[in-house]
Amino acid sequence: MKFPAPVSLSWVATLINAELVGTTDKPATGINEIHKVEAGDLVFVDHPKYYITCLESAASFIIINTKDVTVPEGKALLVVDSPFEAYQTITNHFRPFQPSNKSISDSAIIGEGTTIMPHVYIGNHVNIGKNCVIYPNVTILDYTIIGNNVVIQAGTVIGGDAFYYNTKKNREAWFKRMNSCGNVIIEDNVEIGCSCTIDRGVSASTIVGKGTIIDNMVQLGHEVVIGKNCLIGSQVGIAGVTTLEDGVTLWGQVGVSKTLTIGENAVVLAQAGVNKTIEGNKTYWGTPVMNAKDKQKENVWVKRIPALWKKVMEADS
Amino acid sequence: MKFPAPVSLSWVATLINAELVGTTDKPATGINEIHKVEAGDLVFVDHPKYYITCLESAASFIIINTKDVTVPEGKALLVVDSPFEAYQTITNHFRPFQPSNKSISDSAIIGEGTTIMPHVYIGNHVNIGKNCVIYPNVTILDYTIIGNNVVIQAGTVIGGDAFYYNTKKNREAWFKRMNSCGNVIIEDNVEIGCSCTIDRGVSASTIVGKGTIIDNMVQLGHEVVIGKNCLIGSQVGIAGVTTLEDGVTLWGQVGVSKTLTIGENAVVLAQAGVNKTIEGNKTYWGTPVMNAKDKQKENVWVKRIPALWKKVMEADS
Amino acid sequence: MKFPAPVSLSWVATLINAELVGTTDKPATGINEIHKVEAGDLVFVDHPKYYITCLESAASFIIINTKDVTVPEGKALLVVDSPFEAYQTITNHFRPFQPSNKSISDSAIIGEGTTIMPHVYIGNHVNIGKNCVIYPNVTILDYTIIGNNVVIQAGTVIGGDAFYYNTKKNREAWFKRMNSCGNVIIEDNVEIGCSCTIDRGVSASTIVGKGTIIDNMVQLGHEVVIGKNCLIGSQVGIAGVTTLEDGVTLWGQVGVSKTLTIGENAVVLAQAGVNKTIEGNKTYWGTPVMNAKDKQKENVWVKRIPALWKKVMEADS
Repeated sequence: MKFPAPVSLSWVATLINAELVGTTDKPATGINEIHKVEAGDLVFVDHPKYYITCLESAASFIIINTKDVTVPEGKALLVVDSPFEAYQTITNHFRPFQPSNKSISDSAIIGEGTTIMPHVYIGNHVNIGKNCVIYPNVTILDYTIIGNNVVIQAGTVIGGDAFYYNTKKNREAWFKRMNSCGNVIIEDNVEIGCSCTIDRGVSASTIVGKGTIIDNMVQLGHEVVIGKNCLIGSQVGIAGVTTLEDGVTLWGQVGVSKTLTIGENAVVLAQAGVNKTIEGNKTYWGTPVMNAKDKQKENVWVKRIPALWKKVMEADS
Repeated sequence: MKFPAPVSLSWVATLINAELVGTTDKPATGINEIHKVEAGDLVFVDHPKYYITCLESAASFIIINTKDVTVPEGKALLVVDSPFEAYQTITNHFRPFQPSNKSISDSAIIGEGTTIMPHVYIGNHVNIGKNCVIYPNVTILDYTIIGNNVVIQAGTVIGGDAFYYNTKKNREAWFKRMNSCGNVIIEDNVEIGCSCTIDRGVSASTIVGKGTIIDNMVQLGHEVVIGKNCLIGSQVGIAGVTTLEDGVTLWGQVGVSKTLTIGENAVVLAQAGVNKTIEGNKTYWGTPVMNAKDKQKENVWVKRIPALWKKVMEADS
Repeated sequence: MKFPAPVSLSWVATLINAELVGTTDKPATGINEIHKVEAGDLVFVDHPKYYITCLESAASFIIINTKDVTVPEGKALLVVDSPFEAYQTITNHFRPFQPSNKSISDSAIIGEGTTIMPHVYIGNHVNIGKNCVIYPNVTILDYTIIGNNVVIQAGTVIGGDAFYYNTKKNREAWFKRMNSCGNVIIEDNVEIGCSCTIDRGVSASTIVGKGTIIDNMVQLGHEVVIGKNCLIGSQVGIAGVTTLEDGVTLWGQVGVSKTLTIGENAVVLAQAGVNKTIEGNKTYWGTPVMNAKDKQKENVWVKRIPALWKKVMEADS
């Protein structure tokens, strides 16, 4: 997330009770987790395994639990005991949990010609464009941005918290949810089916690109980015921080793993499991996913095993 | 859909600005897309590849973008530049989008002894029979017909728009949704679980037959027809225009492709992918689906490959 | 379910018009179906195939449609024509269907610091602890018990009726739902995603253990018991009466069959199908599920079939 305005590093250090090391005269413009970090951002790291990745990332300011690292030129450390708690403190400050008790929050903006049907919830700071239709029992949570001519069918949930936890097995609870301070952006002319769930980003945006159409019961994880004019079949699930380039087609019940990319105009056939980045302009199938024609051939080869067995046994006798 | 009353062909021609060719003295009784067309119906076709199919279909009146075809005896053409737009105009005329802003629309009819729980939405022209229970947060959209003794559990959506688009890649938006002017019919004694989605037909009806029971999170596409006394497990998805005959059992997470038929009393085991029409009174499994026993044997054969390899390598040496 | 207080067996016999046989002087303390039965319980059986199982179960009192069995010492029979109808009569007596027409029923108890957002339904006798957040459009049905610090995201349904039917193919309707007189228990610090469905037990409790986190669109069947600190990925489905021990991880779209156990700290990779009890502290994959490494090797072996074929054919020529 970007802050509403740049803040001085000393203000941040005071907020989270941190010791400053390095180049501390530039302001911080936002905070992001490592997958989505940009120059001017704060990032946090608490495991030595990831120290270097974070120090060498685009982030300008690293919230860290050691002083025993080399600070890259022009960057600063904010040294604390628990970087995770510091992250929670900062994001809570800028995006505190403020549930609205109204069906449509006072801070929501709704464009001309947009229809909001009964039992819809629209949270704080939501911005919906013109000529949209929001069907009954839809939930649109805080900070969601929706373009023009968007259709969201009944029962869909936009902007749920990311399924993104810090694992601390030595605590009473093993998991602690990271605050979701990101949002969801739905671009113009998108149509979303019934009972879909589109989670907000942990620190950045989950995006559905212009003209994309989504069938019923589709699940999009945090910071998923769907390109323009994609077609997503029913009961598809896409895990966090994965990108679909423009014109991708996923048929029903496809599962897509996290942090990968599906190339432009790729087609993935029903029930496939995409476990790695795949190139565009090809058709895929199977779990794990492979070229669809190769998968069909493989299925034929499997059916030949009995004949092969017979031949080998005959040769043997 | 059938029109409320037959209309003269000249009235239709004026509505969509069409030139009439052929036998134009009979009235039109309805409009359907090609999968569901009947005598008296209008149908539309805009791609030369499908001209013959539509001209030879049961439809009496063909909305088409050419005069350069032979008109079958007793039929008429309605010649326009964009048959798709003409279809949208006609269906919009008879079933315009009229969102109700009430939880239960004024035109809904609800039978004696039926319980409607809080946060339920019931749209225009919905007809619900006697002694039904509609649990909280259910959405029942326009023109749905529900019989007697039906249970619909919480969060389910009945009558969402079909996921059925006209693809026009040369436009700004690649996809344009066809108006769903069909409906959903739920027969007597059906029980539907929580958070299911049952889409309305594009031009005909999606039907769930008498006595069928459906578990949670089941997705039924447009114009799916489920027979009597079927059992549909959780998280099953069935694509558009597919038929299940009576007594079919689908276990959890089964996926069924479009426009196929599953025969009477067939059983499909969990997670299978049904990609073709299958006969009744048999048990199936696997993706793509096959006889369940054969699939089990195939799984055993796969486990013998290492032994086969060893034998061949030994023979070789 | 346990009765609010123990009841005399003669009172039960009068209620269901049963003939008593055996040791009838002890009170009945509850009623359960065979998977969950305890001493003091009533159980019912109508098929000779299961007579012995029920007579030898922990149940003290057997509702049965024969006198022609040996009554175990200290137990009693309640002989009726239709044991199933007797079960329905008893459970209806203690837990009749009483839909609330309020968003939050009068008998619901909600702890301090708990936030209930708009369009939430909370049924009769629901008990929610402190500092929970219940997001919009959530449905929580009768008798559900929720601990402290629980998060339930938008659109989720807790306490739907079990998908558990008595099959009577000779009737007009093939299926008759057994009354769900059980409930759902969500322990402290559990977090449940958007649009999940967690069914109540038929006669006992569906339980989600302390600290467990559940992603969006997860389906838990009746009497599923999830241990502490489990992680359940999106679109997972778990069928009835299955147990996950503590610390189990299921990735996205995993399906788990009924009445089995997944051992402590087991990990099941995405899209797998768990069809049998599996040991803890191992990683699994595939449909049907197997050791994940073995499955990976099997996938490699399948790709060697063409080479094997070539070798055999060459040897042959």
